[in-house]
Amino acid sequence: MSTDNTAETTEASTGSESKCGASEARSASEASGEAASSSTAAQASTEPSNESKCGASTTETSTESTCGAASSDASASKCGASSSSDEQEVGATVDDFEGDPGRLIAVGLGPGEPEGMTARAKAALADAEHIVGYTTYVDLLPDDVTDGADDIYSTPMCGEVSRTEEAIDRALAGNDVAIVGSGDPNVYALAGLALEILESKGGTASAVDFEVVPGVPAAQSCGARLGAPLVNDTVSVSLSDHLTPMDEIESRLHAIAPEGFTIAIYNPWSRKRRENFQRCCEILLEHRDPETPVGIVHGASRDDEATMITDLGTLPELGEADIVDMTTTIVVGNGETYVWDDRMVTPRGYETKYDY
Amino acid sequence: MSTDNTAETTEASTGSESKCGASEARSASEASGEAASSSTAAQASTEPSNESKCGASTTETSTESTCGAASSDASASKCGASSSSDEQEVGATVDDFEGDPGRLIAVGLGPGEPEGMTARAKAALADAEHIVGYTTYVDLLPDDVTDGADDIYSTPMCGEVSRTEEAIDRALAGNDVAIVGSGDPNVYALAGLALEILESKGGTASAVDFEVVPGVPAAQSCGARLGAPLVNDTVSVSLSDHLTPMDEIESRLHAIAPEGFTIAIYNPWSRKRRENFQRCCEILLEHRDPETPVGIVHGASRDDEATMITDLGTLPELGEADIVDMTTTIVVGNGETYVWDDRMVTPRGYETKYDY
Repeated sequence: MSTDNTAETTEASTGSESKCGASEARSASEASGEAASSSTAAQASTEPSNESKCGASTTETSTESTCGAASSDASASKCGASSSSDEQEVGATVDDFEGDPGRLIAVGLGPGEPEGMTARAKAALADAEHIVGYTTYVDLLPDDVTDGADDIYSTPMCGEVSRTEEAIDRALAGNDVAIVGSGDPNVYALAGLALEILESKGGTASAVDFEVVPGVPAAQSCGARLGAPLVNDTVSVSLSDHLTPMDEIESRLHAIAPEGFTIAIYNPWSRKRRENFQRCCEILLEHRDPETPVGIVHGASRDDEATMITDLGTLPELGEADIVDMTTTIVVGNGETYVWDDRMVTPRGYETKYDY
Repeated sequence: MSTDNTAETTEASTGSESKCGASEARSASEASGEAASSSTAAQASTEPSNESKCGASTTETSTESTCGAASSDASASKCGASSSSDEQEVGATVDDFEGDPGRLIAVGLGPGEPEGMTARAKAALADAEHIVGYTTYVDLLPDDVTDGADDIYSTPMCGEVSRTEEAIDRALAGNDVAIVGSGDPNVYALAGLALEILESKGGTASAVDFEVVPGVPAAQSCGARLGAPLVNDTVSVSLSDHLTPMDEIESRLHAIAPEGFTIAIYNPWSRKRRENFQRCCEILLEHRDPETPVGIVHGASRDDEATMITDLGTLPELGEADIVDMTTTIVVGNGETYVWDDRMVTPRGYETKYDY
């Protein structure tokens, strides 16, 4: 259930899209996505675009869609940032709904393929009256789990705030709603956002019988493809500074790199913040051997899945490679990790106690 | 797929239990589990025992079974430690097997209940000729996924090394083998041990078509029950010093505690190392506010499941409480984590960019 917090789009949630209670009264304008500096956008526009993942209407002519199009100055358009003069606070509150609320379940789909879902996730979707999610993941759902739903509401990347609010409004209006995402709802994902928005609306988690159905996180999906890189103490860290300041991310990397953690890096690279990836590599190389094994998994369980095992010294060169983008998870070994027969192995420590 | 590395047992893997190739030639004596110091064992024996989880024969009379019974001096019996004079190196090598090897798949079952398994895990088990695992988890498998297996080999807690070797021997002898465990095979679990033992036998991962089927890790199962505590950068750390020296664990805790990580603590407490839990609490309290929310989940998805939300200042008192033992995962919030409506919420950071 990785959040789609890096591409850029403007979503207009109109009444005609809304199937529930009070939300037909809203006119949501959510300018989302990270801001491109003018210079970065100009540079990017000379490169082949593989970043535009927004289905929403776009008024920018750049080949790299910034999608913050409601603003005439795209370089100032932050993801719904409060500095945006045309921002509108979206949302009904619990008082706008009559009757008893329905249920709200955040369902983790795992790596994305139907085979990666748990039986519990399938059952939760089969029982849901409304299914809400990012279009790419909703499209991957098998028919047998969506056939029973009265309505499916999907929006493109970057709409996680308005989409989550839509799910909550539908639940407050009395519907049993499942909001879905890849991976696990607790890993850089929507479980927290759902609770925060629910609270802001004056609702309670108990009133909607809020529940989280866990899924296989990306780190574990990728670890499985690499062998056994994550069998000891592990850190997961996201390099997206969209929601966490880069100085905090750097501080975390400095703290963990000298210790015996394996590191799962989420959101490693996007055109808008290629320097975060370089900075991460520099920090890790300050503390770890350049020969430390590194596993890279792109698009786990998707058609464009690709896996590479390399080393930390080589990693900085790979920022611009196709295998490293926002669907990639990178696993950096600890001081004991080794590569054997094309597998990455982090010893758990048994070899210190057993002969085998 | 948490490893069962804390209880204590001696397993004698006899020829009559073995269903495959060369393993009838072995006489494995695996003295496993952590050593109890004499004083600790004496202290423990005055308390009600809830630690004995070993089905193997035991010659100790202590109410806390140390199960390292092959040694006359239980206090010196380490988990197969090389100092043990009666240790026998177990295991056939690849040369002891004729014909083509079968497959070896490490399957993560998730939290333990059948509903927590992925479809892919079920399919892998249904296709397996032999299923190998810890008795508790094997017993939880639904009939429809085990009915197709020619043989099921399960052993009690603490037998992970001999059990994994048995699985590998069976695969090398030509059988398609699934070795199972709860959670994910990459999280303190057997994927790495399987590769290490396979290597020691002169086999290769490619020859047995080694594969890992990921599952929902305990941290995510527990996070789901607590709400949304793990939606930002997170560390998982095990307090078991059976395979990692305590000074390394302490160093890791000191490194991460001042940073903005949430922390998932595995293997938090056992009678043999209650002081690790206390030391962990002390270190966290050196760096974090005593009011930091802490979630405790005992036996997720099992009959004795219990959940508690408390704070870091209270945590040290809970080491001796029933809710904290080896089936417990503890989630320590970061500086932003709060409790709302009985849920633990770690903001992802959206509130800094959006109004809702």
